[in-house]
Amino acid sequence: MSSTPVAACDFIVFGGTGDLAMRKLLPALYLRDIDGQLPADFRVIGVSRAGLDSDGYRDKVAAELSTHVPPAQQSAAAVDAFLRRLHFVSADADGSGNWPALVDLLAEAPQRIRVFYLSCAPRLYGPISRTLARRGLVSEHSRVVLEKPIGTDLQSARDINDQVGQVFAESQVFRIDHYLGKEAVQNLLVLRFANMVLEPLWNASAIDHVQITVAETLGVGQRADYYDGSGALRDMVQNHLLQLLCLVAMEPPVSVTDDGVRYEKLKVLRALRPVTGQLSATHTVRAQYEAGAVDDRPVPGYRDELDGAESATETFVALKAEVHNLRWRGVPFYLRTGKRLDARRSEIVVVFKPVPHSIWPGLESAMTPNRLVIRLQPDEGIRLHMLAKQPGPGGVRLRPVSLGLNFADQLPDRTPEAYERLLMDVVRGNPTLFMRRDEVEAAWQWTEPILHAWHAGHARMHRYPAGSGGPDAARALIESDGRRWNEDHT
Amino acid sequence: MSSTPVAACDFIVFGGTGDLAMRKLLPALYLRDIDGQLPADFRVIGVSRAGLDSDGYRDKVAAELSTHVPPAQQSAAAVDAFLRRLHFVSADADGSGNWPALVDLLAEAPQRIRVFYLSCAPRLYGPISRTLARRGLVSEHSRVVLEKPIGTDLQSARDINDQVGQVFAESQVFRIDHYLGKEAVQNLLVLRFANMVLEPLWNASAIDHVQITVAETLGVGQRADYYDGSGALRDMVQNHLLQLLCLVAMEPPVSVTDDGVRYEKLKVLRALRPVTGQLSATHTVRAQYEAGAVDDRPVPGYRDELDGAESATETFVALKAEVHNLRWRGVPFYLRTGKRLDARRSEIVVVFKPVPHSIWPGLESAMTPNRLVIRLQPDEGIRLHMLAKQPGPGGVRLRPVSLGLNFADQLPDRTPEAYERLLMDVVRGNPTLFMRRDEVEAAWQWTEPILHAWHAGHARMHRYPAGSGGPDAARALIESDGRRWNEDHT
Repeated sequence: MSSTPVAACDFIVFGGTGDLAMRKLLPALYLRDIDGQLPADFRVIGVSRAGLDSDGYRDKVAAELSTHVPPAQQSAAAVDAFLRRLHFVSADADGSGNWPALVDLLAEAPQRIRVFYLSCAPRLYGPISRTLARRGLVSEHSRVVLEKPIGTDLQSARDINDQVGQVFAESQVFRIDHYLGKEAVQNLLVLRFANMVLEPLWNASAIDHVQITVAETLGVGQRADYYDGSGALRDMVQNHLLQLLCLVAMEPPVSVTDDGVRYEKLKVLRALRPVTGQLSATHTVRAQYEAGAVDDRPVPGYRDELDGAESATETFVALKAEVHNLRWRGVPFYLRTGKRLDARRSEIVVVFKPVPHSIWPGLESAMTPNRLVIRLQPDEGIRLHMLAKQPGPGGVRLRPVSLGLNFADQLPDRTPEAYERLLMDVVRGNPTLFMRRDEVEAAWQWTEPILHAWHAGHARMHRYPAGSGGPDAARALIESDGRRWNEDHT
Repeated sequence: MSSTPVAACDFIVFGGTGDLAMRKLLPALYLRDIDGQLPADFRVIGVSRAGLDSDGYRDKVAAELSTHVPPAQQSAAAVDAFLRRLHFVSADADGSGNWPALVDLLAEAPQRIRVFYLSCAPRLYGPISRTLARRGLVSEHSRVVLEKPIGTDLQSARDINDQVGQVFAESQVFRIDHYLGKEAVQNLLVLRFANMVLEPLWNASAIDHVQITVAETLGVGQRADYYDGSGALRDMVQNHLLQLLCLVAMEPPVSVTDDGVRYEKLKVLRALRPVTGQLSATHTVRAQYEAGAVDDRPVPGYRDELDGAESATETFVALKAEVHNLRWRGVPFYLRTGKRLDARRSEIVVVFKPVPHSIWPGLESAMTPNRLVIRLQPDEGIRLHMLAKQPGPGGVRLRPVSLGLNFADQLPDRTPEAYERLLMDVVRGNPTLFMRRDEVEAAWQWTEPILHAWHAGHARMHRYPAGSGGPDAARALIESDGRRWNEDHT
């Protein structure tokens, strides 16, 4: 694998010593470097209040790379070369600290592309943007990357977008959702739009329903305080799951090179049937995990992790979304996500309608519907579940078989991390996989009434044991429609 | 694998010492026996002019089984048990020889199902039928099995069908085409009619064209004299290839349990555009192999095998068939078959239409059409060729991938031979996979004008070296339509 180098760039990471930077961003940049995609004039400038100098930063990054880069990609020479790209500035969002050092560094190459990656609390997005402007650092070649969550409801999202928007034009703002950078998600677009065998089926005539599951085994742990102010709906559904829903449901864009994909996703969000008031009782399930066991190891309940405090924050949500447009009316999208479940698994399952008639009398009940499974975690792949004939000279018997494509198996190279692609897309200025302001706000517009309905008491809080498959109510949500969650993970 | 036993049966094989009986029929019955499908009262009676007694026949069969049964299925005890089912009668088609012995044998169980398997020259079908009737051996529980070729043109087929029809009701006549017993062909029905993902695509809107190839590496060898009176069109196209075409093209039958499949196949045959006169020059290619090499071993040309005689018999034929009905108008079916080609390979390739628009500018030429390949030989399997994304953080690049199902890989048991299924279907009285009289005659009705056109000189005879991919003219036939024969056999 060798890629075309991107343009020269100063890549400035605010929160440059934080968890995301160390685990994901710097490893991703390193992996792009060893692949030859970073030109000589590509610098990475960490910014935080950590009080390091550049050498101290390099030492810290070297240690973290040895943990977070796959061993096969580690090489002392390559790490050294990457470390030489690194600089560090100790500074604060509000303009205190050593901002002049950052000004001086960037002044060395005023025409170079600048990426300001805000890997910090969203409440700092406005202050940092303002300081960047005040210091004269925002050039026409500048881009700013915002991590989710952008706000906690529609109004706070608008506020953040307004504040950033006073400094950066919308075309300079890259709202990142790393789910959109996953190979399997990218492949969803290719599957749908580069293959004649899927698009004619991709509608309410042939598809019965769609399931989107993002299941985690981890609990909230250290993040309990942050998480308790958010919950699964805000933390996962409003962004990751709705984005996946949009990519499954959207109409074909004219082109991926302009804003086409984002317009199409926006249309899907606007076509979502609002889940307000009483509808939330039949269309949503919220739940919180209690003490249980993961891999035979006892784990505490959510409230234990909050030191026993009462909490109305959901760690699990399941819901039935309906896209009210010509293509999808009558095809429910069942979404679920939760922490402390029995397996780490993310998948999109497209369940086709049953064949309406069996030409083999007596085999009606064996005619299980076809399913297309797009797996995002733990390993990325796609699999089409069909029926074949059980071999043998007796009468016809049907046998479920699957035609599979595991990217790791069939494709020779390492599957790149989502951040690798997305960071390069920012440098290239390709916005397709990032969310536009109106998208983020439309997602909040649909999500917020669910929060309101819950607070008004329309859907009670369920409980589930840590390490289980989630609350029974989530099963009931789909089974009351005569359907079942996919349990076949072959 | 264990199957429900069929009913008690006397299975009488005319031509019982011949090549087909030894290589295929008796091994198939043996394999059904070890699988428990033959009840205690199941006898196999060989009939021919070989002048053996039953013990001599058993010795001969034992020797042949050791060659023609896979080693894993051979067991001395099982072979002994099977041999005890065997009897032999030395008799002639016209009634001479030891017919009374056959009469006596069958008289032991007058109510038992009788299968008369005519594994002999088609000109004997009438005489044997008449002798069976004259000897009083045709009961209401009797069935007769006719091997192809049934006739050499429409009139001779009608004559044979008339002669057999004077003795047997049409419902008692099983015209066998072992291609229809192959697992992959059976699976074609299951694929089409038990899976929602294919049938909505199975028409001129989504499919560009269909290719059916039956390629052999063998020459005519010992069969040169027989073959020279027949040729590839009569020997392969009129039966095997047209049957495969029918199964691909037919409308869904109401049920497989009645005559439904045969009606649907007949409708396809009647919808074939006649290839008469001048049309044969653009729609057919005939060719004969010349001396060449197979596996680096020199092999003679066709006329060498006829001792240098001139011959106008084709050993290769390629043609473009058109099904003029609502579903298929505009979707050509390209057929080709030949002897002494570079590989033994039978396959049905369904080529879908190209995606009409690329949402990735510049990738138009990479958007190769999807293909569904149903492979019959050398190993049976199905494979769907699609496009996926080349992994990597660069721009989208498309990569051909295939989702495959190899029956031998995914299914635990030995893939049964076509004859095993078909012989049991005869005993069970299930006619679905056999050809009805009107089907055979409709196939001749379409085939015969091509022969007439050739004899009138409308399509010249091409030559191809033994061991090659066939004549250039066969490539030109499809390439002049802007298409190519499938060369991807992954």
